[in-house]
Amino acid sequence: MRSYYCGELRSEHIGETVTLYGWVDRRRDHGGVIFLDVRDRSGIVQIVSDPERTPDSYHGAEALRSEYVVKITGRVTNRPEDSLNPKLPTGEVEIYADEIELLNAVRKQLPFQVATAENESVREDLRLKYRYLDLRRDRMSRNLQLRHQVVKAMRRHLEDVGGFIEVETPILTRSTPEGARDYLVPSRVNLGDWYALPQSPQLFKQLLMVSGLDRYYQIARCFRDEDLRADRQPEFTQLDMEMSFMSLEEIIELNEGLVSQIFQSVKGVELPRPFRRLTYAEAMDRYGSDKPDTRFGMELVDVSDLMKDSGFKVFSGAVAAGGIVKVLPIPGGNDAISNVRIKPGGDLFKEASEAGAKGLAYIRVRDNGEIDTIGAIKDNLTEAQKQELLDRTGAQPGHLLLFAAADATTVNKTLDRLRLFVGNELGLIDKDKMNLLWVTDFPMFEWNADEKRLEALHHPFTAPHPDDINDLKTARAQAYDLVLNGTEIGGGSLRIYQREVQEKVFEAIGLSTEEAYNKFGFLLDAFEYGTPPHGGIAYGLDRLVMLLAGEESIRDVIAFPKTQQAGCLLTNAPAGVDEKQLKELQVRSTYTPKS
Amino acid sequence: MRSYYCGELRSEHIGETVTLYGWVDRRRDHGGVIFLDVRDRSGIVQIVSDPERTPDSYHGAEALRSEYVVKITGRVTNRPEDSLNPKLPTGEVEIYADEIELLNAVRKQLPFQVATAENESVREDLRLKYRYLDLRRDRMSRNLQLRHQVVKAMRRHLEDVGGFIEVETPILTRSTPEGARDYLVPSRVNLGDWYALPQSPQLFKQLLMVSGLDRYYQIARCFRDEDLRADRQPEFTQLDMEMSFMSLEEIIELNEGLVSQIFQSVKGVELPRPFRRLTYAEAMDRYGSDKPDTRFGMELVDVSDLMKDSGFKVFSGAVAAGGIVKVLPIPGGNDAISNVRIKPGGDLFKEASEAGAKGLAYIRVRDNGEIDTIGAIKDNLTEAQKQELLDRTGAQPGHLLLFAAADATTVNKTLDRLRLFVGNELGLIDKDKMNLLWVTDFPMFEWNADEKRLEALHHPFTAPHPDDINDLKTARAQAYDLVLNGTEIGGGSLRIYQREVQEKVFEAIGLSTEEAYNKFGFLLDAFEYGTPPHGGIAYGLDRLVMLLAGEESIRDVIAFPKTQQAGCLLTNAPAGVDEKQLKELQVRSTYTPKS
Repeated sequence: MRSYYCGELRSEHIGETVTLYGWVDRRRDHGGVIFLDVRDRSGIVQIVSDPERTPDSYHGAEALRSEYVVKITGRVTNRPEDSLNPKLPTGEVEIYADEIELLNAVRKQLPFQVATAENESVREDLRLKYRYLDLRRDRMSRNLQLRHQVVKAMRRHLEDVGGFIEVETPILTRSTPEGARDYLVPSRVNLGDWYALPQSPQLFKQLLMVSGLDRYYQIARCFRDEDLRADRQPEFTQLDMEMSFMSLEEIIELNEGLVSQIFQSVKGVELPRPFRRLTYAEAMDRYGSDKPDTRFGMELVDVSDLMKDSGFKVFSGAVAAGGIVKVLPIPGGNDAISNVRIKPGGDLFKEASEAGAKGLAYIRVRDNGEIDTIGAIKDNLTEAQKQELLDRTGAQPGHLLLFAAADATTVNKTLDRLRLFVGNELGLIDKDKMNLLWVTDFPMFEWNADEKRLEALHHPFTAPHPDDINDLKTARAQAYDLVLNGTEIGGGSLRIYQREVQEKVFEAIGLSTEEAYNKFGFLLDAFEYGTPPHGGIAYGLDRLVMLLAGEESIRDVIAFPKTQQAGCLLTNAPAGVDEKQLKELQVRSTYTPKS
Repeated sequence: MRSYYCGELRSEHIGETVTLYGWVDRRRDHGGVIFLDVRDRSGIVQIVSDPERTPDSYHGAEALRSEYVVKITGRVTNRPEDSLNPKLPTGEVEIYADEIELLNAVRKQLPFQVATAENESVREDLRLKYRYLDLRRDRMSRNLQLRHQVVKAMRRHLEDVGGFIEVETPILTRSTPEGARDYLVPSRVNLGDWYALPQSPQLFKQLLMVSGLDRYYQIARCFRDEDLRADRQPEFTQLDMEMSFMSLEEIIELNEGLVSQIFQSVKGVELPRPFRRLTYAEAMDRYGSDKPDTRFGMELVDVSDLMKDSGFKVFSGAVAAGGIVKVLPIPGGNDAISNVRIKPGGDLFKEASEAGAKGLAYIRVRDNGEIDTIGAIKDNLTEAQKQELLDRTGAQPGHLLLFAAADATTVNKTLDRLRLFVGNELGLIDKDKMNLLWVTDFPMFEWNADEKRLEALHHPFTAPHPDDINDLKTARAQAYDLVLNGTEIGGGSLRIYQREVQEKVFEAIGLSTEEAYNKFGFLLDAFEYGTPPHGGIAYGLDRLVMLLAGEESIRDVIAFPKTQQAGCLLTNAPAGVDEKQLKELQVRSTYTPKS
């Protein structure tokens, strides 16, 4: 039986005879003495085999190669002074092997180096195809273990501090209207009918509140057949929660406790509490985003009022058309960012135009305080306006001011994007910071221009702000998102639990009671039988773990992820199936491959 | 904010002013004073509203009806001596309500009584349709909470004592040959291809061992599109585990620790350890079953040798044809079981014939020790044989001996079934007992009569017993099932990790290396890159919780189960879907409903 994991050995174990299991990370032959790095999930330890002291183990060690599986029995000894390795947690000791047993060999050429020291950069398709080797590598092994620690911290806090009960909700369920496409599953027992895989357990968790469960949680698998974006997965994991009889403030406080506990457990970081909060309106105003990265400044400044009568028609025209003019002030931008980059063909221009802007206006504040810009702007600025502009944006000598003028959505999107782009480039973002931010008071509805009607920003069970109940069309929702360093990691709301309010909301989005029943019948029925006030939140686990691991892709914190083409390179899923299987299901594909 | 859950209040809280939330379980009007039982997930407490002491709350209480949602503020007081309720955990106290706030009403007729005291028996289809009300009822609420406690105990033991790491494996994966039918999911991104939902994470957990994770667990959702049997669900939950570098004995010991911890946590029961063990051969011999209920005796006795030359051709003929003759000795059976029940038309006959037997022979041992049976048996028994029969079966006056004679499978199936049937009827089974039993040394293969070939009893990665490696066809497997009171709750095995052994097993089941690669290619590939010795087990969570809850159906320990027609009566899944959805997936149903 194993006495220790390899990575656990320290100088306090010196003198003990131990049994270890693991993989040969590296094997070095130093003038007759063989050194092995042996690795398991905990780390690495150095094994020494000396032909004179332990000829048996030496014979075994000679035959070993990288990634062979071994059992080692030997004595923990201190390393000689000159071979101490302070970089390695086990760097003060080495094991003198009495016995080395080969448990299994490698019989094929390794597709890439697994060894910890190599730290080789490997093509992702190769890593995914040989995922079992990729997961043996130090980085991925640590990521999976971190994910486990995060989930463990979540569960224990919710159970022990929050009194939450874990409940499993169905995976084979019914297609519900939640925006994205459903994955469908044909039913063999009910031919012609289909199950859908859940996009979230939303309806079930609300039903659990109706059933008096009081506090529910689940680490829930969710499914969305979305069009392919950079970092999405067909199946993903949420920490899903719902609770009854709690106010918005109580829910937020409980969640700050939860998130703080996670950071405490896995990073040893004490987060300052309460977390910062911004309303949606403030966040859009100051950052142009409902998930601002608050690790750095460069806040946007609205100058619409200042420019509405400007002779520079790009500005005044935008305001006249119902739009706005906003400024992104960039400290040091005068030196760092040339005009070429702002004009068509430049990288900043490209960022702006991908956000929908037609172009960028700018003002440079020279080192002497002089303003430099194109004539059309300069000529149309009075001294007073100039001064007001500098005051409002806090511009100092060396600043670059970037202007966007269009409809509000485009302006915000453009300057948000440029703010992040430039903030990164200028190194303004402290990567060690962990900034948590609640964004609250989202609007209840957004305008669907295609269908020319309001639609629910979250879902139509989100409760409106009590102050706004009389004018629902512009009402704020009792919804809250939690943002970490500019990434949304969780979102939730209080739910509607009173029929009168629910009917008003349906009315606002132009849904007749009958249509509502067709869509959400069983939930609306349930609401008639004694529904408690309730609310909840869901966290994107993959994304949260990714941020905690310092990774750039959620694929690096999922054991067996899919590619961006929604495929698994390890198992080759999805794949063709037996005609017999389809026959039993009485379904067929109507797809004809192009030849 | 809530001060306590209703069911938590005790005499130690007397004098406190508390805030409670819950549902009106019952409302009684006792001569002007209103009594409310208010319920939340923890239980019930009595609220008193007195028109003289608290007219405000009385006014509120008058309007309340069953299942209304309320907030109560009041003072905990001791109950008068004559209204103490020792049956209720809160039976020493009641709350004098200062305020009663109606949070929500019930607006439709309740489909059934929810109140705890009613304990009404309700049709299951109604319970499933209004599951949110059913789950509010005491019994179901306790079942869900028990399930949570079981899962919590599992997780914590595995994490804290076992060092296991939880890893999520994919739900959208590839169809693998595991016996049952797969649920399939058409791919939109890879038209013409299909995902399959996993029947178990078997392949992924073995891959995790190849990747050095060392100890893996997951509470895993599994899917089988099986033909409908009494108590199966299309989706079900396993506690799934796999571990490296452990012997069979070490795995069994670890699992006994786990199961004992579960029983300790949720039942307060200290299980005797080590658990009892039977080999498969012994279990079949003595009980006719590989999952015997060992809570009572009535063990089977093989008398083939005694009867092989009998003049009673039913016995000798069976043995001559390669079959066996076995006896089920029933103490007190002479009085309890009449001949009519054993003969065609009788209930015991029916049990036997459903197990495949053509009939049952019997011998009665009268109170005077005389043997009574049909002439054809009596006339062909010598005195010595008679005595030997009584000795071997331990028959005493009052015994009934039931004989089955046929092939071994039929005989065992018949007498196993009769043993349970009669044991239940005669009250021989102590329902409070919790008998845990390992069944080990399963055969590696069973004969597939249809295909005229051996096939793996578990799966072809199960490791054979090292003593049997030279004659694999009759080899025992290093497989183990855990049986609780006659129900299999878990099963697992050591896996093959050496290529030579794997090839021999494929050869034994007539699978060429090429065919094996077609079926299990990526796993066999993985095995070439340094596979550790490993093994695992999976527990049926639904069934285990069912037994711990004393329920008869797994549907009663699943929040939102499917019917035996694989449907959800609450959401009406599966259901028709938009033609547009199918068009995008380029699939269609070829089913035409019969008109």
